[in-house]
Amino acid sequence: MNTRDRDEILISMVIKLIKRKAIPNLKNVIAKTHSADIAPWFPRLRPEEQIILFDLLIQEGCMGEVLNELNSEERDLFIETTEAPVLADILHTMPADDVSAMLANLPEAQQEELLKLIKGKASENLEQLLQYEEKTAGYIMTPHFFAASEETTAAATVERIREMVDVEMVFYVYVVDDENRLKGVISLRQLVATKSDTPLKDLMTTRVYTVYTHTPQEEVAQVVARYDLLAVPVLDDTAALVGIVTIDDVVDVIRDENTEDVLKMAGTGDVDIASKSVFRNTRARLPWLLASFVGGLIAVYMIGQFEEPLEKITALAFFIPIIMGMGGNIGTQSSTIIVRGLATGEVDLKEGWKVLWREFATGANLGVAYGVLLGIFVLIVTRFANWSVPDELAPKYVWFPVVVSLAICVNMIIAATVGTIIPMLFKRFRIDPAIATGPFVTTSIDVFGILFYFIIARIFLF
Amino acid sequence: MNTRDRDEILISMVIKLIKRKAIPNLKNVIAKTHSADIAPWFPRLRPEEQIILFDLLIQEGCMGEVLNELNSEERDLFIETTEAPVLADILHTMPADDVSAMLANLPEAQQEELLKLIKGKASENLEQLLQYEEKTAGYIMTPHFFAASEETTAAATVERIREMVDVEMVFYVYVVDDENRLKGVISLRQLVATKSDTPLKDLMTTRVYTVYTHTPQEEVAQVVARYDLLAVPVLDDTAALVGIVTIDDVVDVIRDENTEDVLKMAGTGDVDIASKSVFRNTRARLPWLLASFVGGLIAVYMIGQFEEPLEKITALAFFIPIIMGMGGNIGTQSSTIIVRGLATGEVDLKEGWKVLWREFATGANLGVAYGVLLGIFVLIVTRFANWSVPDELAPKYVWFPVVVSLAICVNMIIAATVGTIIPMLFKRFRIDPAIATGPFVTTSIDVFGILFYFIIARIFLF
Repeated sequence: MNTRDRDEILISMVIKLIKRKAIPNLKNVIAKTHSADIAPWFPRLRPEEQIILFDLLIQEGCMGEVLNELNSEERDLFIETTEAPVLADILHTMPADDVSAMLANLPEAQQEELLKLIKGKASENLEQLLQYEEKTAGYIMTPHFFAASEETTAAATVERIREMVDVEMVFYVYVVDDENRLKGVISLRQLVATKSDTPLKDLMTTRVYTVYTHTPQEEVAQVVARYDLLAVPVLDDTAALVGIVTIDDVVDVIRDENTEDVLKMAGTGDVDIASKSVFRNTRARLPWLLASFVGGLIAVYMIGQFEEPLEKITALAFFIPIIMGMGGNIGTQSSTIIVRGLATGEVDLKEGWKVLWREFATGANLGVAYGVLLGIFVLIVTRFANWSVPDELAPKYVWFPVVVSLAICVNMIIAATVGTIIPMLFKRFRIDPAIATGPFVTTSIDVFGILFYFIIARIFLF
Repeated sequence: MNTRDRDEILISMVIKLIKRKAIPNLKNVIAKTHSADIAPWFPRLRPEEQIILFDLLIQEGCMGEVLNELNSEERDLFIETTEAPVLADILHTMPADDVSAMLANLPEAQQEELLKLIKGKASENLEQLLQYEEKTAGYIMTPHFFAASEETTAAATVERIREMVDVEMVFYVYVVDDENRLKGVISLRQLVATKSDTPLKDLMTTRVYTVYTHTPQEEVAQVVARYDLLAVPVLDDTAALVGIVTIDDVVDVIRDENTEDVLKMAGTGDVDIASKSVFRNTRARLPWLLASFVGGLIAVYMIGQFEEPLEKITALAFFIPIIMGMGGNIGTQSSTIIVRGLATGEVDLKEGWKVLWREFATGANLGVAYGVLLGIFVLIVTRFANWSVPDELAPKYVWFPVVVSLAICVNMIIAATVGTIIPMLFKRFRIDPAIATGPFVTTSIDVFGILFYFIIARIFLF
């Protein structure tokens, strides 16, 4: 039985229990279930049922953990329907990085109200975290880490770890000087494996991979993934250690960045996949379609210029879709390969010419293959279908199969090349290459494809 | 300075040193560089330079670590140019899961030869790992984990950890019975934080998330990510503990699965992004374009059926690209949102009707918006452009703006709906929904769009 199936059984049961208002049974189920397994219940419940569940989770003391896993709509509903003091209590139980991410999305007045209610050290920490820009290391880091001075012994450090409650997950002990500057790092395993009176400075590794509070989260993820770290220390501008980003947050970052990339590549803008709002969905997608619309109007104008040839040989119109389609598809293939390669680091701008050559050559191979195929097809079809041709053009009409064959071949080569160059140029000028696979590029490939098709037709047939 | 810039400086230096054959300097650089930072040098070197570098890495004793990070082409070059005993020595230094993944890609004869050279326990382990199917937990797990019996005391466990060398990363101690069945788990942190004579059975958590050797790697990643684990234990069919999958491998799985999804969505097949082979690239992409080609031929046939209307009102052809383009783009948006949502779990089949409604309504909004826009545009243009219309059709020609307006609107609604339904159906019937965004679906949307366009035209104009 896989995770999905298990979720499903649990959800069906919970829905039934909620409908029956079987509160004691529900509490029982909640107590036995991991908070990460509770979150998937919400999208299946109506808002009034969600509110009942919120209340139970508060009573069971696990609302904080669940809150973190909810979709934005459900989280908004919770924040709206919960009184500020209760909300503040719950936020208090959550990791600081998760709270700051949540607060950052609230209107400023509400943010301040809540910060006032979350008193003391926690509130200070939060205010600090809220300073950092979204999607930076500062924004996703936790200020709770374990640091010790160079002179502390292994035994004393272990003793201190024993007493701690607040630190999320300890894998590393960070060794700092009096000014809180990072000097080295020791893994908990190393610490356990040594003699108790050794000072940390004799145990620590001094080569530490670090990031800064302003480092973009993508890059933080790259550092953690590349060096197989469990957490990376975050320094402020004075090089003082101010937090760590743990690998579980990095996993979320990788997921989110991937989703963002995929949506950008499809030209959907900032769509919230889990949102049910038609209005928001429409608004996010409208502008991206505009590129395609304008491109389409340009195509109208361009084909309009060839009205006369089209009137004489209507069959030219039959091949507009296949020429557009094949160009569009091969262009999408190339740009996707490049965009993804740039994102994972497997394609490097410095190898640009090699990559461009490969895509060009691939485009040429595929273009010739499908060009010949289409040429043969048209050759056969024109013998049987009696597509009308004016008598004066009949002698030149034998070239018709060559025209479509050549058009599809040229178009595919151009599409593969353009699909390769544009994302690389974007990358070079620090524009997100993911945009390059969207309507913007495919539309320009369409327009050029049609233009070349009619130019080739005019040369051979008229 | 970010990771990329740092890589770049290092690479330029290394390239120069290799060209100058400055071996001692190169050795010096290698000794100071993390193996994960050495791998990016290779794509920038010629094969003969790569072989020089291989040799130096073997001498410096870090070839094993680097090998794991190389692209498939460079890895193949290394395996081809290295003698079997040397290769076996290097494989011996690598984690078993990485070695088995590498061996799995080799021809069977070579595999056996190497297994013979890697003697003893390591070879046994490997043979075991090689049994498991690709992309399962068994395939990606490491057989090195730390297990102890229930009666062992905390102190004795810590003592044993001290003595170990072979275990990759210890975060958890797995507690097993005599038949190696998993009874519970303790984190290293918990272990450190307790009294030394407590037996493990009094410390352990008995709720352990596990996977089986045959669990697909995607699902392993989901479990690790969902429950914020650092490693997940892997059980065989007899429920005995046989390995663990660590989070650093899960990060790689998430990356790879995402790349695979993105490429599938673009209809590029099994393209190896880092490969430079034009032939392999062509072969992987050729079949995917066939769907688009066949769709294009169907479009040729369909438009052929409307030759007469097209001959009379050539302007109908001008709007083929915009109608195809807008339908294709909105369809891609919808299918991408659904495919990605299904992959991340944010879209659930059980909510299918809600999602379908949202996409339908969004399609309707956008369809009406762009339909009206295009209608107005055409209304204006037809006043100025003197597109030719036969006299007998002139009275009906006033409907022309309505035809294109309606066609684009209907097409966008259908495209959004089809783009939503197909990936959900695929998921329902356990076909990978990522395929649904490729040429297959976009092409069928194109074909339907054109068909409806001409049907609407025939109704209003003829």
